[in-house]
Amino acid sequence: MRSRMDDVKSYAPSAVVGQVMMGAVVAEVMESRNPKFKAGDTVTARQGWQLYSVSDGRDMAVMDPSAAPLPWYLGLLGGGGTTAWVGLFDIGKAKAGETVVVSAASGSVGSVVGQLAKLHGCRVVGIAGGPEKCGYCVDDLGFDACIDYKANGMLANLQAATPKGVDVYFDNVGGEILDAVLTRMNPHSRIPLCGTISQYDKTEPYGIRNFRSFLVNRILLQDFVMTDYREEGQRAQPWLLQAVKDGKLKYRVSVAEGLAAAPEAFLGMLKGRNFGKQVVKLS
Amino acid sequence: MRSRMDDVKSYAPSAVVGQVMMGAVVAEVMESRNPKFKAGDTVTARQGWQLYSVSDGRDMAVMDPSAAPLPWYLGLLGGGGTTAWVGLFDIGKAKAGETVVVSAASGSVGSVVGQLAKLHGCRVVGIAGGPEKCGYCVDDLGFDACIDYKANGMLANLQAATPKGVDVYFDNVGGEILDAVLTRMNPHSRIPLCGTISQYDKTEPYGIRNFRSFLVNRILLQDFVMTDYREEGQRAQPWLLQAVKDGKLKYRVSVAEGLAAAPEAFLGMLKGRNFGKQVVKLS
Repeated sequence: MRSRMDDVKSYAPSAVVGQVMMGAVVAEVMESRNPKFKAGDTVTARQGWQLYSVSDGRDMAVMDPSAAPLPWYLGLLGGGGTTAWVGLFDIGKAKAGETVVVSAASGSVGSVVGQLAKLHGCRVVGIAGGPEKCGYCVDDLGFDACIDYKANGMLANLQAATPKGVDVYFDNVGGEILDAVLTRMNPHSRIPLCGTISQYDKTEPYGIRNFRSFLVNRILLQDFVMTDYREEGQRAQPWLLQAVKDGKLKYRVSVAEGLAAAPEAFLGMLKGRNFGKQVVKLS
Repeated sequence: MRSRMDDVKSYAPSAVVGQVMMGAVVAEVMESRNPKFKAGDTVTARQGWQLYSVSDGRDMAVMDPSAAPLPWYLGLLGGGGTTAWVGLFDIGKAKAGETVVVSAASGSVGSVVGQLAKLHGCRVVGIAGGPEKCGYCVDDLGFDACIDYKANGMLANLQAATPKGVDVYFDNVGGEILDAVLTRMNPHSRIPLCGTISQYDKTEPYGIRNFRSFLVNRILLQDFVMTDYREEGQRAQPWLLQAVKDGKLKYRVSVAEGLAAAPEAFLGMLKGRNFGKQVVKLS
């Protein structure tokens, strides 16, 4: 969504001023002439920032509102969960015993990455902003360690937390934090690059200085967006749903109330003021 | 070899002061108790910067001195050629009709990359230092264009030479040139990273500012050293030898005379004073 707000080339087309902002929603079907949906169905869809909308049924799916809290379908059981899965396993090729580092660790994607990696037998180190988020990652999600990037000594703390180096760095933020983690990457390590949130609002991007680590360590860097990995995502979804039903995965959501609160909630998310997945309750 | 001269972690161990500097050689067997080799054989080996040496036969292979000029076995028919092949095809997945850009284009690896890509049906744009090297790439090697990175307007020239963007960037140099090419990469493009020669002598590395292109374009970046791709390299070698015999590949060599000239030749290579593959004729 943030990329759509810039008038520059990106993987998603730019938003058009005066038109509805794109975004995923959980919604209730009010009326349907599509045999796949009936009034009262709870669905996930991409209807954007609006209270009511008309759909041809594309990108819309009925879901089970009793299986998990509704907002989870926008994160853990939606794009966030499949993004975590694809990045960690299909691109990152994480193996049991390896060290996985994830940035924006308490967030919608990062929190799932860390939990999946722990279930897979990896050592997991999060990077998050502030003691509250770091505490959540370790105490609630079971990460082995979490580095507060806002505190002093970030690099020393990262070194201490990754005594065997880093095999997979699931990066959501780019910039200075990526540069720091590059100093810890092992030979043949992998970096699934999911976002560069630290750079979106910068007019002058941060320059990655430790680029040579890519050469020295023969790192694979692969950036990905889920539209390129629909099949892999569809494989992950039933597994994630079952894991939720089995109580194996936790998830935290920040809820803003009302459509009018959406812009402020969005800006807050970019600044890390939210905790976990940020959603807006439209009505 | 340059990496070995730093006391830092890299894919090759550091050179030890007082011991022979590592390096590939073409040599003549003077005496042998190894049944695989006999006196008079011409061999390729990794005997380093010295006139005479003893070998257990490891990493040594008999070659045909009549098939090509001897120095070619240190480049086009040695590590340079297989590096070009693996980077272009196994990692870069270059396809006919795509645009391939290669830096250090007139050099030992780059000149082979460009010629292989042309034979494969790609549009090939080189990046080299000065009009002489650029002219060689276009007039002698058949590249579609070559950008002089020492001239003004490098980025504008690169844009003009890549009207359909860049699908594979075979990078030998890193730094500012990589940053410029990142602005031209297509969605799902690939960057085999073979070297960062522009950065080896810098105490303060250049910061890559256009890193976000990796995300926006879902670029694959894969750094590689040939020791990880022995099989692929062995597949390439007979093809390269046949192509040389068929007159399909050109190669240029700079020769320094005598062991004492080796250090100066090495420094000159790092500064781009050589033209094509730099070798030292030991005796």
